[in-house]
Amino acid sequence: MQAVKVAVVGASGYSGEELIRLLARHPGVELVCVTSRQHAGKPLAAVHPRFAGGRFGGVEFAPSDAGSVIASGAAFAFLALPHGLASEFARPLLAGGLRVVDLSADFRLRSAEVYREFYGEEHPAPELLARAVYGMPETHREEIREAELVASPGCYPTSAILPLYPLLERQVLAPATIVINSLSGVSGAGRKAVEDYLFVECNENARAYGLPKHRHLSEIEQELSAAAGAAVRVSFAPHLIPLSRGILTTIHASLAPGVEPGAVGAALEEKYAGERFVRLLGEARFAEIKHVALTNFIEIGWRHDPRTGRVIMSSAEDNLVKGASGQAIQSFNLMTGRAEDEGLV
Amino acid sequence: MQAVKVAVVGASGYSGEELIRLLARHPGVELVCVTSRQHAGKPLAAVHPRFAGGRFGGVEFAPSDAGSVIASGAAFAFLALPHGLASEFARPLLAGGLRVVDLSADFRLRSAEVYREFYGEEHPAPELLARAVYGMPETHREEIREAELVASPGCYPTSAILPLYPLLERQVLAPATIVINSLSGVSGAGRKAVEDYLFVECNENARAYGLPKHRHLSEIEQELSAAAGAAVRVSFAPHLIPLSRGILTTIHASLAPGVEPGAVGAALEEKYAGERFVRLLGEARFAEIKHVALTNFIEIGWRHDPRTGRVIMSSAEDNLVKGASGQAIQSFNLMTGRAEDEGLV
Amino acid sequence: MQAVKVAVVGASGYSGEELIRLLARHPGVELVCVTSRQHAGKPLAAVHPRFAGGRFGGVEFAPSDAGSVIASGAAFAFLALPHGLASEFARPLLAGGLRVVDLSADFRLRSAEVYREFYGEEHPAPELLARAVYGMPETHREEIREAELVASPGCYPTSAILPLYPLLERQVLAPATIVINSLSGVSGAGRKAVEDYLFVECNENARAYGLPKHRHLSEIEQELSAAAGAAVRVSFAPHLIPLSRGILTTIHASLAPGVEPGAVGAALEEKYAGERFVRLLGEARFAEIKHVALTNFIEIGWRHDPRTGRVIMSSAEDNLVKGASGQAIQSFNLMTGRAEDEGLV
Amino acid sequence: MQAVKVAVVGASGYSGEELIRLLARHPGVELVCVTSRQHAGKPLAAVHPRFAGGRFGGVEFAPSDAGSVIASGAAFAFLALPHGLASEFARPLLAGGLRVVDLSADFRLRSAEVYREFYGEEHPAPELLARAVYGMPETHREEIREAELVASPGCYPTSAILPLYPLLERQVLAPATIVINSLSGVSGAGRKAVEDYLFVECNENARAYGLPKHRHLSEIEQELSAAAGAAVRVSFAPHLIPLSRGILTTIHASLAPGVEPGAVGAALEEKYAGERFVRLLGEARFAEIKHVALTNFIEIGWRHDPRTGRVIMSSAEDNLVKGASGQAIQSFNLMTGRAEDEGLV
Repeated sequence: MQAVKVAVVGASGYSGEELIRLLARHPGVELVCVTSRQHAGKPLAAVHPRFAGGRFGGVEFAPSDAGSVIASGAAFAFLALPHGLASEFARPLLAGGLRVVDLSADFRLRSAEVYREFYGEEHPAPELLARAVYGMPETHREEIREAELVASPGCYPTSAILPLYPLLERQVLAPATIVINSLSGVSGAGRKAVEDYLFVECNENARAYGLPKHRHLSEIEQELSAAAGAAVRVSFAPHLIPLSRGILTTIHASLAPGVEPGAVGAALEEKYAGERFVRLLGEARFAEIKHVALTNFIEIGWRHDPRTGRVIMSSAEDNLVKGASGQAIQSFNLMTGRAEDEGLV
Repeated sequence: MQAVKVAVVGASGYSGEELIRLLARHPGVELVCVTSRQHAGKPLAAVHPRFAGGRFGGVEFAPSDAGSVIASGAAFAFLALPHGLASEFARPLLAGGLRVVDLSADFRLRSAEVYREFYGEEHPAPELLARAVYGMPETHREEIREAELVASPGCYPTSAILPLYPLLERQVLAPATIVINSLSGVSGAGRKAVEDYLFVECNENARAYGLPKHRHLSEIEQELSAAAGAAVRVSFAPHLIPLSRGILTTIHASLAPGVEPGAVGAALEEKYAGERFVRLLGEARFAEIKHVALTNFIEIGWRHDPRTGRVIMSSAEDNLVKGASGQAIQSFNLMTGRAEDEGLV
Repeated sequence: MQAVKVAVVGASGYSGEELIRLLARHPGVELVCVTSRQHAGKPLAAVHPRFAGGRFGGVEFAPSDAGSVIASGAAFAFLALPHGLASEFARPLLAGGLRVVDLSADFRLRSAEVYREFYGEEHPAPELLARAVYGMPETHREEIREAELVASPGCYPTSAILPLYPLLERQVLAPATIVINSLSGVSGAGRKAVEDYLFVECNENARAYGLPKHRHLSEIEQELSAAAGAAVRVSFAPHLIPLSRGILTTIHASLAPGVEPGAVGAALEEKYAGERFVRLLGEARFAEIKHVALTNFIEIGWRHDPRTGRVIMSSAEDNLVKGASGQAIQSFNLMTGRAEDEGLV
Repeated sequence: MQAVKVAVVGASGYSGEELIRLLARHPGVELVCVTSRQHAGKPLAAVHPRFAGGRFGGVEFAPSDAGSVIASGAAFAFLALPHGLASEFARPLLAGGLRVVDLSADFRLRSAEVYREFYGEEHPAPELLARAVYGMPETHREEIREAELVASPGCYPTSAILPLYPLLERQVLAPATIVINSLSGVSGAGRKAVEDYLFVECNENARAYGLPKHRHLSEIEQELSAAAGAAVRVSFAPHLIPLSRGILTTIHASLAPGVEPGAVGAALEEKYAGERFVRLLGEARFAEIKHVALTNFIEIGWRHDPRTGRVIMSSAEDNLVKGASGQAIQSFNLMTGRAEDEGLV
């Protein structure tokens, strides 16, 4: 199979850098274009020194506009841009015939209204929403294969939706009782020179934030509602903890009336039996970030507490891989007819 | 007021070391005895180099038996020992006329049966349980003043009970809906040479553990039940995160039927208005470990989520200070008629 | 002795915050004024939440000008400002009769020319240089007592000068062979929203920087030259490592011709025998940051390597305490006739 | 080219685990045997959960004896064992016709006497020393190709020898002036349940250790002497800093008499021009661990200080990759006639 000419738009942040790190190991990719507002003209290795001497270290940053991307001959574009900005690229790139995986939030929500509610601004390209597919292969695989525009899921939503999806699909849990607590590494905040994310401010610290209505809640509820076949409202509490990479999510929920505890494992095993990147832990242990760091795996453990009737689930992922760039490549592989794990092992 | 002759039994672990660090700033204390199974005969500074050149650096470790403590002339003993072992000291020390603050779990539970259920062994000194007072000044101040034996609270329970106590006392929350998630620094695991707590195993990692029935759950439920005036069962999920000190606790619970959201702040403010070491944040921000690290403060923030009807609370404390040694000194001050914050500011 | 009315000018950075944390425990101080360019009008606790509920939490930020400081009635000012800016305050404050400890680099160098060489700009107040005393009590104690303007030493220089001073004073080492490597925590870079100091950029990283002519080199050479009674040139390599607080310094140097290895320990012990904050380790162990963190101690270890003829010394300090705010308080205590360790234990 | 049947002996430590992580991406390898004293019978994924679901996750631990390795049909063995123990395997495996890369110190030194001096015990297999090749491809490439037994270099020595080798080979530096300071992540201490390496003991700490005669010094001097064509003695100071992976090394040395500063860059560029894994930084910046972490690269920067006449060099590597398992695979590739970077990019 021929290598696909690929562009990475917005290659200066953590997701863009991670994407290129992963693509450099992908045999089916030729990187023909990287863009950045600030770095046009510089080689990739000048901005990200870890790529010096590597496969793509010499690729030069193009100006950050859709015309440059199209001119590069790329057939495929990954957008690793802030929300709002991604739409500005998606529209002309799609018009130019490229297929697009967007890592921002622009196309994750089906509804422009929900977008307005959670993002506090009008959706920048509502006409594209119907063409976008939510890029979670475990729940939307067939749609992704055919998609021209994939909205790669957010890091928190990935860690929360994957454990819960099969349980809501099969009515194992009582949706109104779901409480999700997530702990994220600081790379989730992006490469922004902001005092809150200085080493000294984050080290030896932890805090909840964005409560009670973090933007990712909209995405979690959309997908869980789809799974349940009914509107689902959940509590979601994100926390910042002192590590660079990784998300650990702990979920409490009550079993639906009349459901036996064993239904939890059964639903997960049935749904994810053949999944390459979902590691089910059963009751043996709870998820740990170190076992998935730098991989595209998510691991999921669970236990039933007979004292309270609640199920406790825990999931762990690398927020930059399964929670962002790795999952985007999973979609790319599906869209281009490749083995789903190509370049990801 | 004359200085009290004090012994610290079990001075080699993190709580014992922190206790001595804090006592060294306390003007009302004379440290006449420190003990340790392994270090008898050595000066304190040889075991804890940070005390070299300081006020107590030259105090010599006595053998680890009650007779040595009594012979030292101490009128007061802090026990910083593993559970089970503390009882072996408490009995003869009380018989010898000393007053005791125990930092272990031995005397925290009113019921020897609950102890057996959660600790998996018979209680080592059930006859002392009735004489012990739970050493949380904000909820048991008057009893502590008169106590001969104080059971200083566990680190997790302190972080969970203080936010919830006034809300259960005033029936603000529906007890059955309470879900507590706590994040702890690694010092909570003690100074034990165990692979799980190696730097490389904890750094860039996070995990839940001890689910669903961590030992501290028994203590949390005991005190919350006392507050509510009825048996309370809660979910409690402890997590290990990569920092040395601190506990961050996030609590989700539904308002009791008919209660207005404003009742949360009202109850907390009424209960803790005059409290020296409770910092109420209201809705302004959520708690952060860095703002309480190395202090005896606990900070508590809260918010109501109208979408789910849940209240979300967050608390932060230093697990070694308010969660252990600082709180123990608070009790000591009360027991000896001192200003409650002496040596703690 | 009456409490001294004190101002802290520039209280928003890490040194200023640490200074206030330490002063809050100092019985001889009344904090009458804090200033900050950005925070005028806010209470201290609004900017530094850890002070809420504490002794000085309610002190309100004054506008950042000398007039406000003088109007506060302060008799003493600590300047915790960037270099260059400190001079603008020192001049009017001295003229207004205040005594000043400056934590910036403005008055550390005797020579305006050396300042120009290392700081790349003209000295902002050369006329004050002759009135300033270098605020290292162990080497300038008597001058400090009488000083109206004290230049508190830099963090790196403190860690390098204290081990070397007695050895150069007594001609124990060959000055031209001195190589100093220092490892600093990230708080040394200040509270600046700069990408290089983000958590993700510093965590799991280490690097040398500022080579070969870091600004602090000028200060190290000035003081070592004074000790040696001759111009001394040394190599100094600072490094950034992933911790918040602390400096570890390792020094290699050859013994001066004909000197026995035992002269190293002899010189250090003679010089520092009575020093309250210098902990000599001999050959027993090397210095560690954790044993001095949050204290005003510096610890110094050394060993002779017969294979190479070199002496290897290591020192550890808390860069914010002995390396900045604690040492400034040591000077304050000397200047105001107090016990040198008041408020520092 | 056919896949080589490979065994990893001692797969429970950090080097062994990293080796397997890297081999799982290597297309030319079939892992037929892993051994461990404690884990015989368990699948790899049970001991290292990060391998669950991956290529080698199901490989079962064999008993830890040479017979089991030979019986597995392996043609090649990596030994990731403590020093001393490696010899016990090397002898029978070589006798059994396997080719061996040993990651321990057993075969790095040419001289059994130097081994005795630095390791404090008799060499366990002196008869094999003459058959072993020092596995640093950049300096011993041709010998490695033909070797039956390769002694893969130590982590510190790799970081020190590579920058210095070409400069001593070309007489650019004065050998007697060399001072090497290295900072290592905690994984360098191995996966040992020892109090010194607990998270709380290493976090927010740094220290020098093993001075003045760390075991790796012998290896550094052996190779530098070979480069210089004369016995070289250097100072080497290792330090432990709070990160998991990586070594940063800073070297000070004087130029040899009459040599121009430009000779430094010239020698490095000539030596390493075609090297796949050596990244020369020139004077542009100093080395940083984050730019080489998880790669097989070493980066090297340098600068001349005209004030002291010294050259300052800095190198960075991942101690588990270029400093251990990656470099071992580099040798494997050479020994088996593969592209040197196969599986390492």
